Amino acid sequence: MSASEFSFKIIHQSRKSRARVGIIQTPHGIIDTPNFVAVGTNGTLKAIDSIMASSLGLQLMFCNTYHLMLQPGTDIIKQAGGLHKFIQRSMPLITDSGGFQVFSLAYGSVKDEIKSRGKKQHNNSIIKITEEGVLFRSYRDGTKILLTPELSVAAQKDLGADIIIPFDELPPYHITRHELENSLHRTHRWEKRSLDAHLHNRAGQAMYAVIHGGLDKDLRAASAEYLSRLDFDGFAIGGSLGKTKQEMVELLSFVVPLLPREKPNHLLGIGDLLSIESGIRFGIDTFDSSHPTRCARHGLLFTSTGMLKILQAKNRDDFSPIDSLCSCLVCQQYSRAYLHHLFKAHEMTGYSLATIHNVAHMIQRMADYRTQIMNNEL
Amino acid sequence: MSASEFSFKIIHQSRKSRARVGIIQTPHGIIDTPNFVAVGTNGTLKAIDSIMASSLGLQLMFCNTYHLMLQPGTDIIKQAGGLHKFIQRSMPLITDSGGFQVFSLAYGSVKDEIKSRGKKQHNNSIIKITEEGVLFRSYRDGTKILLTPELSVAAQKDLGADIIIPFDELPPYHITRHELENSLHRTHRWEKRSLDAHLHNRAGQAMYAVIHGGLDKDLRAASAEYLSRLDFDGFAIGGSLGKTKQEMVELLSFVVPLLPREKPNHLLGIGDLLSIESGIRFGIDTFDSSHPTRCARHGLLFTSTGMLKILQAKNRDDFSPIDSLCSCLVCQQYSRAYLHHLFKAHEMTGYSLATIHNVAHMIQRMADYRTQIMNNEL
Repeated sequence: MSASEFSFKIIHQSRKSRARVGIIQTPHGIIDTPNFVAVGTNGTLKAIDSIMASSLGLQLMFCNTYHLMLQPGTDIIKQAGGLHKFIQRSMPLITDSGGFQVFSLAYGSVKDEIKSRGKKQHNNSIIKITEEGVLFRSYRDGTKILLTPELSVAAQKDLGADIIIPFDELPPYHITRHELENSLHRTHRWEKRSLDAHLHNRAGQAMYAVIHGGLDKDLRAASAEYLSRLDFDGFAIGGSLGKTKQEMVELLSFVVPLLPREKPNHLLGIGDLLSIESGIRFGIDTFDSSHPTRCARHGLLFTSTGMLKILQAKNRDDFSPIDSLCSCLVCQQYSRAYLHHLFKAHEMTGYSLATIHNVAHMIQRMADYRTQIMNNEL
Repeated sequence: MSASEFSFKIIHQSRKSRARVGIIQTPHGIIDTPNFVAVGTNGTLKAIDSIMASSLGLQLMFCNTYHLMLQPGTDIIKQAGGLHKFIQRSMPLITDSGGFQVFSLAYGSVKDEIKSRGKKQHNNSIIKITEEGVLFRSYRDGTKILLTPELSVAAQKDLGADIIIPFDELPPYHITRHELENSLHRTHRWEKRSLDAHLHNRAGQAMYAVIHGGLDKDLRAASAEYLSRLDFDGFAIGGSLGKTKQEMVELLSFVVPLLPREKPNHLLGIGDLLSIESGIRFGIDTFDSSHPTRCARHGLLFTSTGMLKILQAKNRDDFSPIDSLCSCLVCQQYSRAYLHHLFKAHEMTGYSLATIHNVAHMIQRMADYRTQIMNNEL
C-alpha cells in the first residue's frame, strides 16, 4: 500500500474522439482508465469475495455508504481499520454519499418512476428534506435517520475509500423546471458543505463532484461551471440522463466537454455495454454499474460475440467454454454445458462462476478499449 | 491421472480402539483415511466450485446419481467425458445408486418419518416397487422413471466415479420385522445384480456393498455375512441407524467388526462431529455428509473450540478470525465481524466463505484424527 496522494494523468488522447487513456493514482494503487467499476454494495461483490475480485484485476470497486451505514454501521468498519481492511481489499475503493440510495429507494429508479412504480415507498421512507439534509426511515428496521452532507462525509471518512462522493439530492424525474433548479442549487450547497467537511480532513481521500441538472442543458452547464470552480479531484455525472440511450448520448456529448479536461470523469450507475462504449468516446474515464454482476446471476453471460443466455437448451450439450477468446478461470476450466446445468439446478456455484466470468470480461473489454484508444481506433 | 486400480492399504491400526489409518488408491488419486467426504449433490458443493474444493484438499467428493440422472442427465455427462471432466475434478469421486434418494424423497428422512412428516410425498413419488426395481415420478417434471440395479449401474458407468454403490432399498423406519427381512433380501438380490452388472465392465471403478438390516442385529449380521462373501471392494453401512446417537453407536459397535478388516468401510450420510469421532473408533474409514456445508450456509461455523454461530450479535465487532488455529484462506483473510456482516446482509459471498471454512475444518480435523491414531491416542 502506497501512501501517495490522488492524481490523474492522461497517457494518450485519441485522435478519433474525446476518448483518452489515463492513470488514476490512489493510496491503494492505480486505476487504468477507461475502466469498469464493479459494485459491491455491502462490501462484497455479489457471489464472489474480495480476494477473487482483486485476483481478476478489478482495479476499482464501488461500495454503498447508505447500506454500510445501516449494516454493519460505519462505526464497526472504522473499528476494523476501515473498509479496505474490513473487506480485505488492498486495491482502490470508491464510496458514494448515501444520497442516491436514500432518494432512489424512496422514488424507485427513473424507470420505475416513468412507469409509475415505486411511488408508494416514497411516503414511507423519506420523512423530510430540508436545507440541513434528509430525514428518512431505515429500510432495515424503520428507525429514523438524518443524513446531512457533514454526516455523509464523516461516514465516508470512517469507511476510508480512496474516492468519495459529496452528498447530493437525486430529484424525481417528474419535476418542474423550477423544482429542478431549486434542487440543483440545494445540491450545490450540499456538495460545497461536503467538500468543506472533506477538506477539513482530507485523509488521503479524493472527492469527485456530482454534476446535476437533469435533462436541462442550461442547468447542466451551470452545474458544471459551478462545481468545476471548486477544489474537487474529479467529476461524476449524476441525476437523470433521460429515458432513452439517445437522450443520454445527447446529454453526455453536451456535458463532458464542459468539465475540466485534466480531471477524471465518472459516469454514475451506467454500465451496459453500449453506454460504456459511447461514454468512452465522450471522454468518460470510469463507469460503475451492477449490470454485469446482475446479468451474471440471471445467466446472461458476456462474450466477444454478444450475450449468451446460459439457460437456453442449446447449451445443454455444448462443451465449449463460455467464450473461447476469454482467458478467465471459468472459461479455462468449465463448459457452457456445466454452467447451464448449474443454473438449471439453481446452484450458487453457477452464480459465482458466471459473476467471475462477467467481471473478467468487463476488465478485458476495458483493456481492449484502452488499446484501441492508444491506436486512435476509438 | 494414474490408471491404477482400486486398492486399500492399512498403514496403522490403533492400539487403543478399532480406529485405523489407511490409504485408498483410486484412478484419480489417493484418499487418506479416516476422511470426510463432502457432498456435491448436483456435481458441485453448494457455494464453492470444484477447483476450490480440490485446492482445499478434499480428497473424495460424493455426487448423487439420482439428481444427475434427472438434471442434466447421465447421457450429457457421458458425452462430456464423464463426471470428473464435466465438473472439472481431477481427484476421486463417489456416486450413490440413486436408490437412497428415490426412497428418502418419498418417505422423507428417518427424522421426518418419526415426526410423521413427509408422508404426503410418498403417494406422489414412488409408484411401484417390484423385484425389477422402482418406478417413481421425477421430482422435477413428474415424468415416470424406472430405476433398476442394472440401470443404476449403467448410469454410474456413464458418470465414471472412482467408487460406485449398488442399488438398494431404503425401507421406511416404521416397518415390521417381516417387512424388513423381505426388504433386506430384495436389497441383497438388487446388490448382487448391481455387482454382476458392474463386474461385466469394471472400467476402473470400485463398488462398495451397502449393509442393511435396520436396527435388527440378526439381519445386520446376515447382511454383513452375505455381502462380504461377494466381490465388493468396500463396505458401506446404510439403512436406519436408529433414532439416537446411542442407538447408532450401539449398532456400529456391533456391525463394523463383522466386516472384512482389510476392506474400506464407509458410513453413509452421517457426518456430524460426534458421530464421526465414534465411527472412527469403530473402524469406519470414510464419512459422507452434507452436514458441514449445510451448517456453513446457516452460519454455523466449526472451530477448534466448538460451534460458532456467526449471526450472534457478539460477532458484530469481533475482528478475530473464525478460528485462530485454522489455516484456511478464510481464517487467514477475513474476520468474524465481516462474516457476521455478510450473513446479516444475506450476501452469497458469506455462504461461500463459510463453506470454504467448514470444509477446510473437516479436512484438518480428519488429518488430526489420523495423527492421533498413528500415535495410538484414539
